[in-house]
Amino acid sequence: MQASSLRPLAERLFAELRTLGFDGIGVTRDSYGAGESAALDRLRAFAEGEGLAVEADRAANLVFRLPDTAPDAPAVWAGSHIDSVPQGGNFDGLAGIVAGLLCLVEHLRAGRTGGLPLQVLAFRGEESAWFGKAYMGSGALFGKLGPQELELPQRCSGETLGACMRRAGADVEAIRAGQLLVDPARVRAYLELHIEQGPVMVARELPLAVVSGIRGNVRHNRIRCIGDAQHSGVVPRWLRHDAMFSVADLIMRLDAHWRLLLEQGSDLVVTTGVVGTDPAEHSISRVPGQVLFSFEARSQSRETLERFYGLMRAECAAVERERGVRFEFDRRLDSPPALMDAGLCGLLRDACAAQGTPFDVIPSGAGHDAALFANAGIPSGMLFVRNQNGSHNPHEAMEIDDFMRGVQAMGHVFDRLCHPTP
Amino acid sequence: MQASSLRPLAERLFAELRTLGFDGIGVTRDSYGAGESAALDRLRAFAEGEGLAVEADRAANLVFRLPDTAPDAPAVWAGSHIDSVPQGGNFDGLAGIVAGLLCLVEHLRAGRTGGLPLQVLAFRGEESAWFGKAYMGSGALFGKLGPQELELPQRCSGETLGACMRRAGADVEAIRAGQLLVDPARVRAYLELHIEQGPVMVARELPLAVVSGIRGNVRHNRIRCIGDAQHSGVVPRWLRHDAMFSVADLIMRLDAHWRLLLEQGSDLVVTTGVVGTDPAEHSISRVPGQVLFSFEARSQSRETLERFYGLMRAECAAVERERGVRFEFDRRLDSPPALMDAGLCGLLRDACAAQGTPFDVIPSGAGHDAALFANAGIPSGMLFVRNQNGSHNPHEAMEIDDFMRGVQAMGHVFDRLCHPTP
Repeated sequence: MQASSLRPLAERLFAELRTLGFDGIGVTRDSYGAGESAALDRLRAFAEGEGLAVEADRAANLVFRLPDTAPDAPAVWAGSHIDSVPQGGNFDGLAGIVAGLLCLVEHLRAGRTGGLPLQVLAFRGEESAWFGKAYMGSGALFGKLGPQELELPQRCSGETLGACMRRAGADVEAIRAGQLLVDPARVRAYLELHIEQGPVMVARELPLAVVSGIRGNVRHNRIRCIGDAQHSGVVPRWLRHDAMFSVADLIMRLDAHWRLLLEQGSDLVVTTGVVGTDPAEHSISRVPGQVLFSFEARSQSRETLERFYGLMRAECAAVERERGVRFEFDRRLDSPPALMDAGLCGLLRDACAAQGTPFDVIPSGAGHDAALFANAGIPSGMLFVRNQNGSHNPHEAMEIDDFMRGVQAMGHVFDRLCHPTP
Repeated sequence: MQASSLRPLAERLFAELRTLGFDGIGVTRDSYGAGESAALDRLRAFAEGEGLAVEADRAANLVFRLPDTAPDAPAVWAGSHIDSVPQGGNFDGLAGIVAGLLCLVEHLRAGRTGGLPLQVLAFRGEESAWFGKAYMGSGALFGKLGPQELELPQRCSGETLGACMRRAGADVEAIRAGQLLVDPARVRAYLELHIEQGPVMVARELPLAVVSGIRGNVRHNRIRCIGDAQHSGVVPRWLRHDAMFSVADLIMRLDAHWRLLLEQGSDLVVTTGVVGTDPAEHSISRVPGQVLFSFEARSQSRETLERFYGLMRAECAAVERERGVRFEFDRRLDSPPALMDAGLCGLLRDACAAQGTPFDVIPSGAGHDAALFANAGIPSGMLFVRNQNGSHNPHEAMEIDDFMRGVQAMGHVFDRLCHPTP
């Protein structure tokens, strides 16, 4: 790969798309909206200028390919999403598309023929910020957008997702009917480069990381701990039913199990993001009679999620017995994890190792289009590039050096996939 | 004591004052207001009908005495308060006045002369519900109501405490100047019967209890735990600064110290009545970046309060180190405890034992006028009568049998104090 000649292309594309999407504070490319479409138009112009073929698919995503390949041929896909959250950063999503395009340009310049062709997908509508629903562009391909989702209103205009998709050129009738718009069998592998959205790679000084899997989660939006609201001065410890001490007790029990599971090598994060005594009755001199709290566990492993959920329920029962309180649960919500393909992870590791870049294998805590491909049975892999300050904000900061290392690694893997040695 | 002849008087007084103060839901006798004054008028009429002398003092409290004694003579005082919270119960306060009056009637009927006379005080304005300030009637006697307090507005009418006191007949100029309106030296002892406001005596089946002391407290209205608001999916445990897990950790550390101190025999209750993640930023999928919470410890012992407060601060520092968060404290608030007189506690214990009533010595978690007497250096004692359902609500439930046991015990102690055997 001629990284030195590709780097200026990357710099130009990032600079142009940042300028195009700048909203005064950050970057805004609204899903199935004008910002997203403008960005895709610019990518199309760039690709056609380079001599690539470009088509929209039936969900209005853009597909880039070598001009001498058939659009419907079995292929290796590289993809990511073009949309952003409001006032977001420039790299979340776009980095993966640019990486794929650079690899495709490299294939064109090198005059690659034969083997499996590479296709690059620029998905629309990955961010849930606009319609309250994620993976719209990739989900539509797999028949995962139903009539209910198509009625979701855009956060600003109130226009339905269906109307916005139609204006962008999508085949809304087929999508509404849940048709498969792509034959999964012809996608031989799905690869996605993405910036890391957490702080791990910066903290560990890793320019690249191979993603082992995308965490699923189990949640309760609202668990109610019911104790007894009593005068704080006159009720001794043995007669209290303190909802707040009970929830604190529960959280510390969960923390202990969490630590133990990590020590045993499990992948798990646990969060109680919303916790509070009841403003209608709480006071400094009153034993809290009620506490509402949320529960979320995330893991790459369904087994770990089930195990931790079971521990949570068991500890609630233990706290109920020991502190004389009661827990009431709203509906349990599940989002399944998606494991990346072991073979692709191995190729990505080899590629990082071959270039001597420090890397490790880590989970993705945020969701990605790759999860849909993996859960559709398509071998999928992801490569993270180091990024400061998280994502979904204007302060995303990916170094172009790190990015080019990622492009090189992706190119290395595409070489193996598109022209496998027998 | 002729308890059988006194019991109908008690039943009549409780019934009359309940009817007089009934507001449709509970009993309302507003501090330095019409409800309180009407109740005092009824007590005055009762006492005068029985042949007792009645005067208002300079804080507009009522003083009852035998007609052949001097108003300013050294005396033993029995007292409690006549006011109630809005929609409160009939017994909180009133029980102590009725108990004193019954003992005084007994002295009159028995033709007691010589020795120390008994005087019964019906205090106004003990409840903080009306002006946000407690112990107004007794506090005024000790020069504890300053100009600032006299400007406090009544919760409904907005009228100042000073104006309400003046209308009730109090010497507001003397009170504003902080004058002592009673010579503490002439109050040889202060005794107060009161219903228990907690659940201990019902749980332990004790009709009576001798109060060892009135708990003071140390408080922070608002402690802020500052962590780092992060995406719940992408930040592993070792990079989190979770404000909620930190506060839960702190609460469980406090709980462990609390249990240990109880096992060592200390008197202590600990409450975090108000706790919450920040509604402006919290979400189910966000590591809480900030938690606000209140802290309150109550004990009869200043040493225990200091010790526990020190432990709390030390544990905050430990949690800061271990979890990478920060605690910010608002002003520390102190309310000193008041120990009851050991000699009076002994007499009250003897009186309960002599009548064969199950009792124990317990602390008072709520405040009482007796605390001001004790902290003014006057030997003070309190007797609790069993009561269901707490206080400050219409469901207070004191059995008249328990009450009469309390009256008998008080009479026993007054006999010892007023006519000490040499």
